[in-house]
Amino acid sequence: MVIAGGEPRGVMWIGADEVAGGGPAIRSMNPRTRIPLEPAYRYGVADEVERAASLAEKAFDEFRTTSAEQRAVFLETIASGIDTAATDLIERAHLETALNHTRLQGEVTRTSNQLRLFARELRSGLWQGVRIDGARPDETPQRPELRQRRVPLGPVAVFGASNFPFAYSVAGGDTASALAAGCPVVVKAHDAHLGTSELVARIVRAAVEECALPEGTFSVLVGDGPDLGIRLVVDPRIQAVGFTGSRSGGLALVKAAAGRDQPIPVFAEMSSVNPVVLFPGALDAGARALATAFVESLTLGAGQYCTNPGLILGIDGPGLDAFVETAAAAVSADGGAVMLSPNISDAYRSACERTASGDGVTELARGTSADANTSAAVLYTASGVDFVANPGLRSEMFGAASLVVRCRDIAEIDEVLRSLDGQLTASLHISTPDDREFAAAILPVLERLAGRIVFNGWPVGAAVGHGIVHGGPFPATSDSRTTSVGSLAIDRFLRPVAYQDAPAELLPDVLRDDNPEHVWRRIDGQLQPPASETGRPVSARLEVVR
Amino acid sequence: MVIAGGEPRGVMWIGADEVAGGGPAIRSMNPRTRIPLEPAYRYGVADEVERAASLAEKAFDEFRTTSAEQRAVFLETIASGIDTAATDLIERAHLETALNHTRLQGEVTRTSNQLRLFARELRSGLWQGVRIDGARPDETPQRPELRQRRVPLGPVAVFGASNFPFAYSVAGGDTASALAAGCPVVVKAHDAHLGTSELVARIVRAAVEECALPEGTFSVLVGDGPDLGIRLVVDPRIQAVGFTGSRSGGLALVKAAAGRDQPIPVFAEMSSVNPVVLFPGALDAGARALATAFVESLTLGAGQYCTNPGLILGIDGPGLDAFVETAAAAVSADGGAVMLSPNISDAYRSACERTASGDGVTELARGTSADANTSAAVLYTASGVDFVANPGLRSEMFGAASLVVRCRDIAEIDEVLRSLDGQLTASLHISTPDDREFAAAILPVLERLAGRIVFNGWPVGAAVGHGIVHGGPFPATSDSRTTSVGSLAIDRFLRPVAYQDAPAELLPDVLRDDNPEHVWRRIDGQLQPPASETGRPVSARLEVVR
Repeated sequence: MVIAGGEPRGVMWIGADEVAGGGPAIRSMNPRTRIPLEPAYRYGVADEVERAASLAEKAFDEFRTTSAEQRAVFLETIASGIDTAATDLIERAHLETALNHTRLQGEVTRTSNQLRLFARELRSGLWQGVRIDGARPDETPQRPELRQRRVPLGPVAVFGASNFPFAYSVAGGDTASALAAGCPVVVKAHDAHLGTSELVARIVRAAVEECALPEGTFSVLVGDGPDLGIRLVVDPRIQAVGFTGSRSGGLALVKAAAGRDQPIPVFAEMSSVNPVVLFPGALDAGARALATAFVESLTLGAGQYCTNPGLILGIDGPGLDAFVETAAAAVSADGGAVMLSPNISDAYRSACERTASGDGVTELARGTSADANTSAAVLYTASGVDFVANPGLRSEMFGAASLVVRCRDIAEIDEVLRSLDGQLTASLHISTPDDREFAAAILPVLERLAGRIVFNGWPVGAAVGHGIVHGGPFPATSDSRTTSVGSLAIDRFLRPVAYQDAPAELLPDVLRDDNPEHVWRRIDGQLQPPASETGRPVSARLEVVR
Repeated sequence: MVIAGGEPRGVMWIGADEVAGGGPAIRSMNPRTRIPLEPAYRYGVADEVERAASLAEKAFDEFRTTSAEQRAVFLETIASGIDTAATDLIERAHLETALNHTRLQGEVTRTSNQLRLFARELRSGLWQGVRIDGARPDETPQRPELRQRRVPLGPVAVFGASNFPFAYSVAGGDTASALAAGCPVVVKAHDAHLGTSELVARIVRAAVEECALPEGTFSVLVGDGPDLGIRLVVDPRIQAVGFTGSRSGGLALVKAAAGRDQPIPVFAEMSSVNPVVLFPGALDAGARALATAFVESLTLGAGQYCTNPGLILGIDGPGLDAFVETAAAAVSADGGAVMLSPNISDAYRSACERTASGDGVTELARGTSADANTSAAVLYTASGVDFVANPGLRSEMFGAASLVVRCRDIAEIDEVLRSLDGQLTASLHISTPDDREFAAAILPVLERLAGRIVFNGWPVGAAVGHGIVHGGPFPATSDSRTTSVGSLAIDRFLRPVAYQDAPAELLPDVLRDDNPEHVWRRIDGQLQPPASETGRPVSARLEVVR
């Protein structure tokens, strides 16, 4: 019996077993003090990957044939466990990440809400993608009856992210959507928050037991990314991968997955500079308010968001001057913040130096850092011409740094946008009819550029729901056809299967004539609500539909 | 003005231009006589790829913003053109492929029906995947309004297949689904039916002009696969690839696409042996009838179907003996058929020799070939133990060859099925309650193995409709999450985009409150029919839904 809550004990979970790995010792670090935190963990090695993958494979057939209701209850049990343990979880995460309590409380709520969203999605049945085409024996050639539903891919490897110890980690969006789909999950915990990961893993394990699910439904490994991480991705039992992190890390997984005998999909959310276009009318109407909101958004959580506004585009003029002046003053006043880990703050410094050394780049303002462990915001500027000529400026600076690109006119803004790589978000601030006209002209460019287009707002944060897209063209993600936030994310882990002329007693419930799961279905292409189907055989409905 | 119909002239189409390529001359061959057919074509080279891709990119923004109705009419115009030209098309295809007129007439009908299916799918609006989450300003954090739809990926490269000169070629399923999605298409015609490809291309070009679509909406290139084919896939403007063909060909495209600076999805349908399980009761009830139907299915179109039944599993006993005896007699009586091309008949012979040389494999029967250009059916047998021990036997023999695996018991059938690679189809013949019990036990294995499970039938043919899945786990396809036949195939070429807090006048029509396109939408997660929305603002509906 797993007792959730309490202190971390320095273990990973391989199925029901608490295990210390066979590799070297590792500790998460308090990024404020740079002092390693207890307890020590030990990296997993080949044997631990083997056991976790083997258990996941063994669990798959039983887990995938649980009912949607059973999996919904499982997700809700995890959600309740997380809410109940929130205080302990937040305390540990605060130690390990230096993120503040308010932010972490919000993230915990987001995480349990996300699990509950997938529980609701499971109950809606829409994820099953049911389609039924009736037989047409009178046609030439005769058409068989075809009934389609979606089934899960198999065990999924999930890589915890550094910047969201809850929402994109052990029980985060990738895990929630994979479990919802019916895929066992093996998580690689992020080194930066091993204690938090263990505590959350304990909650998920307790839920596995409480819901009497097969042992291999869920494991969490601690390990070296290039070693254990790659081993996990190339394990033949793993059938898909979810990842949020750096571009280099994501691409390494994509490459490993593509090199397998059986290639598998990798859903890697990697990097984005999230361009924000300030149109002239919006600047005229309130450049200083925009600048204040911008710097608040930029410095939130030390800028450690994939959707951080790292690139501001505007047309030269007094409005942009006022925006820059106010933004520079706010950035100068930034007292800095402790970043998630020494690695990340080192990478932030390097990225800023790279930008600063770009041709035509000027530093507009820089906050003050109390000490070596604190990173402050930085604001740069460059002309549109210099930006386009200097591809290095297109790369993400992960942290509270942004680059204001001063353009001559709307055509140059268009040119800058077209020079960018794929993005998670693109934002527009508009106010006047002229702005709207410019925006309409530029919208097609943004639709091709990004997964989410934000109007008169800042891109940080991705509301968990049905409408959200947290995805986008490469290199924002490795697969633009999906999202890693929101209910649509379940699609990543499902594939369609058709049953041709199946006898009624061998049909999965969801495909039966009497629709006992009460789901929406496409009957001969026509969407049919559950209520309209009750008690009538499909053949009778087909008469009506045709 | 393009005049459709008439004789092939030895050209490819780059946008509106009829072009002879800059590479070496090539002719399709009459596979009956092995005499090259007029006219000669010339392979395209880098310059032709460059122009076609450039035109496709130039066309994309205009084409993707055509209305669903405009694209539906475009597809219907192509369909009518194909139906009208059917006689000429079939005559030329018969010369180039040796497929008989009945089969080719069926394929032409299938092809125009497929185009019309996507026209209906476009009008249904379901492909747009609309989701609207209302704003919730009272929540903490405030939730923005999010409206999601799907947009096309960009220009798509389609590779024509040798075995379906219409349905999987120039205006086949990949082209129809990509054009439906709003993606310009660049086809590489298959060398085996260049004249047919040109005639179909002329019809599509005429439809492009008739519908006043941008020139680059559609091009067809003639070229060497490893040269022009790879150039096309690595062209940075191409955003997805559709392919039906050999495993080696498909994997070469997958590798090329993965090696790009920006990796792109490849939907390759490659190889499948399509196992068929004959359960004891079904064999007892009618082994000889099953055998007759089996050999009919096996030899249809010289066995040149991706879904050809290449592997038969049964339990040793008098039922299986009777099946084998009748099947062997029917195979012996097979007079052979001319295959699609000398390359394919050579590959068929090699594949048969590879199987024949496998440990424990016995040749049961072989048809007679009138001459060197005719290939006849072959039937082999092996024990379950030998099959499992000999991985070479799992590979496809493209043509009318099949292997009967005699198993000791149901457990050995299970073992054989688990040893297989991913498949397009898996079939079951069942009759008695015992059979159904066995089938129920084995169904989970089949669901993991294949994209389509056929009961009491033969797998050849994939009915074009909404319920069909023509896909399956690797290496049946390179992406099991989709299908290359049926309306679901449009999903391959779309990606979601979310609009956050967009002003009404900047929203795409399909996301507007008044739902002018009358499509089904998910409002706060609840599916809403078009009719229920008329005239009411989304905000009003949200009150009801919550």
